[in-house]
Amino acid sequence: MKAAIFHGPRHVELGKRPDPKVENPTDAIVRVVMGCVCGSDLWYYRGITEHAVGSIGHEFFGVIEELGQETKNLAKGDLVIAPFKFSDGVCANCKFGFPSDCVQGGAFGSGDNDGGQGQFVRVPFAGTTLVKVPKGAYPEDMLASFLALSDVMCTGYHAVVSAGVKKGDTVAVVGDGAVGLSAVIGAKLKGAGRILALSRNPARQKLATEFGATGIVEQRGDEATQAIKKLTDGTGVDAALECVGSDESMSTCVGIVRAGGMIGAVGVPNYEHFKYQDLFWKNAGVRGGIAPARQYIPELLEAVLKGTINPGRVFDLRTDLDHIAEAYAAMDERRAVKSLLRVSDLHEK
Amino acid sequence: MKAAIFHGPRHVELGKRPDPKVENPTDAIVRVVMGCVCGSDLWYYRGITEHAVGSIGHEFFGVIEELGQETKNLAKGDLVIAPFKFSDGVCANCKFGFPSDCVQGGAFGSGDNDGGQGQFVRVPFAGTTLVKVPKGAYPEDMLASFLALSDVMCTGYHAVVSAGVKKGDTVAVVGDGAVGLSAVIGAKLKGAGRILALSRNPARQKLATEFGATGIVEQRGDEATQAIKKLTDGTGVDAALECVGSDESMSTCVGIVRAGGMIGAVGVPNYEHFKYQDLFWKNAGVRGGIAPARQYIPELLEAVLKGTINPGRVFDLRTDLDHIAEAYAAMDERRAVKSLLRVSDLHEK
Repeated sequence: MKAAIFHGPRHVELGKRPDPKVENPTDAIVRVVMGCVCGSDLWYYRGITEHAVGSIGHEFFGVIEELGQETKNLAKGDLVIAPFKFSDGVCANCKFGFPSDCVQGGAFGSGDNDGGQGQFVRVPFAGTTLVKVPKGAYPEDMLASFLALSDVMCTGYHAVVSAGVKKGDTVAVVGDGAVGLSAVIGAKLKGAGRILALSRNPARQKLATEFGATGIVEQRGDEATQAIKKLTDGTGVDAALECVGSDESMSTCVGIVRAGGMIGAVGVPNYEHFKYQDLFWKNAGVRGGIAPARQYIPELLEAVLKGTINPGRVFDLRTDLDHIAEAYAAMDERRAVKSLLRVSDLHEK
Repeated sequence: MKAAIFHGPRHVELGKRPDPKVENPTDAIVRVVMGCVCGSDLWYYRGITEHAVGSIGHEFFGVIEELGQETKNLAKGDLVIAPFKFSDGVCANCKFGFPSDCVQGGAFGSGDNDGGQGQFVRVPFAGTTLVKVPKGAYPEDMLASFLALSDVMCTGYHAVVSAGVKKGDTVAVVGDGAVGLSAVIGAKLKGAGRILALSRNPARQKLATEFGATGIVEQRGDEATQAIKKLTDGTGVDAALECVGSDESMSTCVGIVRAGGMIGAVGVPNYEHFKYQDLFWKNAGVRGGIAPARQYIPELLEAVLKGTINPGRVFDLRTDLDHIAEAYAAMDERRAVKSLLRVSDLHEK
């Protein structure tokens, strides 16, 4: 089959991998309809974080082609969304609601496991990993929203949930990438009263506003902190959503969170200077991590199907596997927020 | 008046300070009935943290002697508990439920402000700071529990609340000092199903058990982490309560908290190696800080008056202002968990 192959920094190209087969009775083989490039893939692309040579991409949805004998609640032809990690659904961590920490779990596109940036994926623990989309005729933009649920929307939502955002809260979203934009959607879904989006990019500002941001802060660093303090009468925000993972963004979050407030942190930590002590003295806290996407997909899918949220709009470049190199380059150069890969038709034979 | 005076490390002795007078119309003068020595006072005593020369002690309860003209809801002769920080009750931080972060607030026993280790205290913002105890005849042990509400019980409870402990949770309390023991009380009050207390001191183990600990872990460091993992089938605890503030205790908390769990941190941070990143990768969080005692006293006072909790039992040395040096030395040498100072009779004229 055709699949994107990670060869090393700045070197992702279309290649071949063996067609996946059912190996364990709980496996399913999914034909990928749409995949995409994640902000975290860029860390590998830029050589900041290591990645094994081989398969890449952990976001996809598609159609079930083949099923192991012990996969429950699934049938060939089902349209399914894959969370970016597979999980057994029965271990203690899964039962606590954190399938992303499943003791038997793992990630797609790890170099070895099939990736979402390819034609087919073998999904372990398919019955507890995949989320079925009800049968129906869906427009293209809704398909993109299904894809967004495999990671980016759940990750933004995890910042919101981790920070405990509730009705009426004042929230600041630090980061205007696809995760930050998804966090805006999530904050609105939870009924936040004010949503301040930090962005100096006009297209992203516009999207943030359409998603529910009530204010835009263009400043960065200390100036951003001062601006947000001013907008909140010197108090700071109930929830600061860290959607980048850099020292600058975390420092902004520490500066703007109010006494007793929370930072919801989902940016992959590349900060070195953050000290929890700086939060301790004002009774603020921090919680977040690798989003338990499987836990969130059902409720977010319901919101997508109702039309309440439309997270697929974070994709602003649509291409295909043949143009995988451009899909990465456009995001790396910030020409695109997020690149969608159309891999196959929904109703391909 | 007589008052303990901090002169420098290992040098606290009885001295004199001017009798306090009402300076602002919202002040009250409180005659101290009981005061005590805080674990955090030991940081000054040991020269680890700086403290101004002068008044010391921030925990006390007593009787109102004098009132400024604008103090509401208080009368001369009222028995009142003072939270360890005074607060105006009207600023944004107070309204968010964090009076310990009051923008006009401050601490007792700061060197300058009167301290709880003295005969009288001028209390700023008395109407919003002091909590009145209903008129009644109270036994000595209940008076000690009133005193415990001024800081230590609220601080232990803050670890519990910050970690979000709820009915049925498995909780580990790291630290067997007065704060840790109070955290055991707090965890039980919230209905925790299992409470593991880390202690190798027989007297403290006994008290922890009487307060509600369901298990004792005698190991320290990595061995403690392994022991708790074993006790929880490899999973870890829902809430790890950090009641020390050292690198070792924080490292234990990081090791034992389960995926998606929380650390409630109230030990004054003297750790240098703790990195939030170590929590991020397992979706755990950390929250805590300087306890908003004024916020918690009413509900905890109700539990004391009902006899549900008896936090005054953490005091295992009873002495008076004349023996202030011994009160400190006994705690410093771990001969006492917490030293109570009987300063005056409840019904002194």
